[in-house]
Amino acid sequence: MRALVRDPAKERASSPAAGVLTTDFSAIRDDPSIGVVAELMGGIDPAREHVLELLEARKPVVTANKQLVAQHGAELFAAAADAGVQLRFEASVCAAIPVIKVLREALVVSNVHRVLGIVNGTTNFILTEMEGGATFGEALAEAQRLGYAEADPTDDVSGADAAAKMAILATVAFGSRVTLADVDYQGVEEVTSLHVAAARELEMVVRLVGSATLVDERLDVRVRPAFVDRHHPLAAVEGAFNAVMLQGDAIREITLEGPGAGGIETASAVVADMVNAIGTQGLLQNDACWRELEALPPGALRSPFYVHLEVDDRPGVLADVARRLAEHDVSVARLVQMPAPVGAVLHIVVHEAAERAVESALSEISDLQIVHAPPFLVPVVSDRGVAELGWA
Amino acid sequence: MRALVRDPAKERASSPAAGVLTTDFSAIRDDPSIGVVAELMGGIDPAREHVLELLEARKPVVTANKQLVAQHGAELFAAAADAGVQLRFEASVCAAIPVIKVLREALVVSNVHRVLGIVNGTTNFILTEMEGGATFGEALAEAQRLGYAEADPTDDVSGADAAAKMAILATVAFGSRVTLADVDYQGVEEVTSLHVAAARELEMVVRLVGSATLVDERLDVRVRPAFVDRHHPLAAVEGAFNAVMLQGDAIREITLEGPGAGGIETASAVVADMVNAIGTQGLLQNDACWRELEALPPGALRSPFYVHLEVDDRPGVLADVARRLAEHDVSVARLVQMPAPVGAVLHIVVHEAAERAVESALSEISDLQIVHAPPFLVPVVSDRGVAELGWA
Repeated sequence: MRALVRDPAKERASSPAAGVLTTDFSAIRDDPSIGVVAELMGGIDPAREHVLELLEARKPVVTANKQLVAQHGAELFAAAADAGVQLRFEASVCAAIPVIKVLREALVVSNVHRVLGIVNGTTNFILTEMEGGATFGEALAEAQRLGYAEADPTDDVSGADAAAKMAILATVAFGSRVTLADVDYQGVEEVTSLHVAAARELEMVVRLVGSATLVDERLDVRVRPAFVDRHHPLAAVEGAFNAVMLQGDAIREITLEGPGAGGIETASAVVADMVNAIGTQGLLQNDACWRELEALPPGALRSPFYVHLEVDDRPGVLADVARRLAEHDVSVARLVQMPAPVGAVLHIVVHEAAERAVESALSEISDLQIVHAPPFLVPVVSDRGVAELGWA
Repeated sequence: MRALVRDPAKERASSPAAGVLTTDFSAIRDDPSIGVVAELMGGIDPAREHVLELLEARKPVVTANKQLVAQHGAELFAAAADAGVQLRFEASVCAAIPVIKVLREALVVSNVHRVLGIVNGTTNFILTEMEGGATFGEALAEAQRLGYAEADPTDDVSGADAAAKMAILATVAFGSRVTLADVDYQGVEEVTSLHVAAARELEMVVRLVGSATLVDERLDVRVRPAFVDRHHPLAAVEGAFNAVMLQGDAIREITLEGPGAGGIETASAVVADMVNAIGTQGLLQNDACWRELEALPPGALRSPFYVHLEVDDRPGVLADVARRLAEHDVSVARLVQMPAPVGAVLHIVVHEAAERAVESALSEISDLQIVHAPPFLVPVVSDRGVAELGWA
């Protein structure tokens, strides 16, 4: 294993073994023991030259370089085909979301005719913040503070970054070369709080949407701010996340959503591409089982829960229920009592607890002779704490 | 190409060439010209025997048979490994949503520790209908009318179908054998309109959620009705759609959503598996470009649009704007005038039209000297007609 670097003496988070770091590109290109190379230097020069030389030396190459693929794809893929080796580029679009693999390997017979994407996390973060009441300037400043946006955010805000990604996605989806110059793009600079409010009135949200559309065998690839219906899968994409929707005759629509940037996320996609380039047939298609894991004991899984209890409407019932839960260390986040045709209904949301603790408490509560029907107990699925949910 | 059938004389939607249909299994197993076989017969017997014999004859097999993989995976994968051929099963879970491929090939280094899934479309349809006001019985009847639910819906409604799929997903995600017997499942039979209403008050929705969780190297796999936070990606899964969320250290969370059933969708996954089994290295990793498509002329793409116009607040302005749009065949779905600090704001939603028609109309409107600022024009992204959006 070798790694080409500018300065071997630079301090690094991990210390590679002696001899791994090199400043000599030919030491990698000409080493017959190296079976696959990942290009992570970024930029066009010298990345383009290096990738071409590696392919000519019959080494498969994996790249995360969006501009390299969007601008020089034709030349690079021709070199890969001539040499009979693979050039993989999953990490160049949407980091760990495997949209290139899905388009090239899973949807081979589905006639994708439209790709819709939220492919820039910075602008999606800004638009989500504006929904929450921030102005464009405040949202951009917050994105910069969190490291989502560069000091010079032009590439993100103008739509240029999204346009390069849409060029790559359109090329792969439709099998016809699309470069950055073919993409008509607008950014989010003109989106104001007034527009965001107007979208809300229409039960929509504002998103920066890339679209690649096949109409009568002709192509349209663009990036635009758009009003997206709240019921559309792209409306649910919040914060710095990305999503790509693939529409085709055989699949109707398939949407992939996840973090579209990040160091570990990108590394995950690069390493997966390297493993795939070396050996899809063998390594990845063996039996999926390679270990024996024990089962967690029944009831041990922890989760927040919702409990629906139909009870007598008389003094002390609520206190009895709350006390039994507390005795089992089940912490109540919400408890609302509402009148019912017979008696009352208690709606209870509890903080994360082991299922068996909640079940034991409910079993004791049922023994109190105040409960009219078996309790209804379900887990709560939320990324937020349950204390932040509705029903004040 | 051969196809094993029970009755070659049966009327079929397509007429295969003479000699394709056979009732003799050995004619397929022993034909050296057959390089890959798709098992689409369903059930355990004789599918299990046939698949074993095919693998032993060193033929790669693709199957859409969920019960076969969930119940006999250990035996089948051992046979495939012994013979050194592939056994692929993408279509056995969630039809065309490529979750098996993504788990096995894209997330190879992402340490997935949790899988959350809406993997039964029938129950998701029922729960979405109940959100709209239907009772459980009405929603089930509608699902049966639309063909989403069988005459005997037990397998779907009880959670057993979802449990078999979660067993397969857990096996692939964690690399440890999980069978149907290991999955603790509950269905949606006990979910009432009261629970759905309670979820809404909490800003949540009811979904049948499968979860496979790795806790301290121990496994928990279950299916439960759950309350899902409206901001969670699984809450956005409506109707008969499926979705699977994969959570892991390196990827945070990746969600795949799409139709989880259907003949063409399943066929799409089966054919993709066949292509992959024959040749991932060569066929699928060539240059993605194989044709040259023309660009659609600028402005020709059709879409519904939203227009935000700041105008003078005086009689006749609204009529002028509406007339100019009509002259360009742009049909207004909504037009709301609201007071603004200076003049008024017109919020206009138009039905699908070519972008250039809307732009031409707006250019003429701008010439009318009633417009205070450049018009803000964005496409509307919606699966519904724009007439169904808010703002009555």
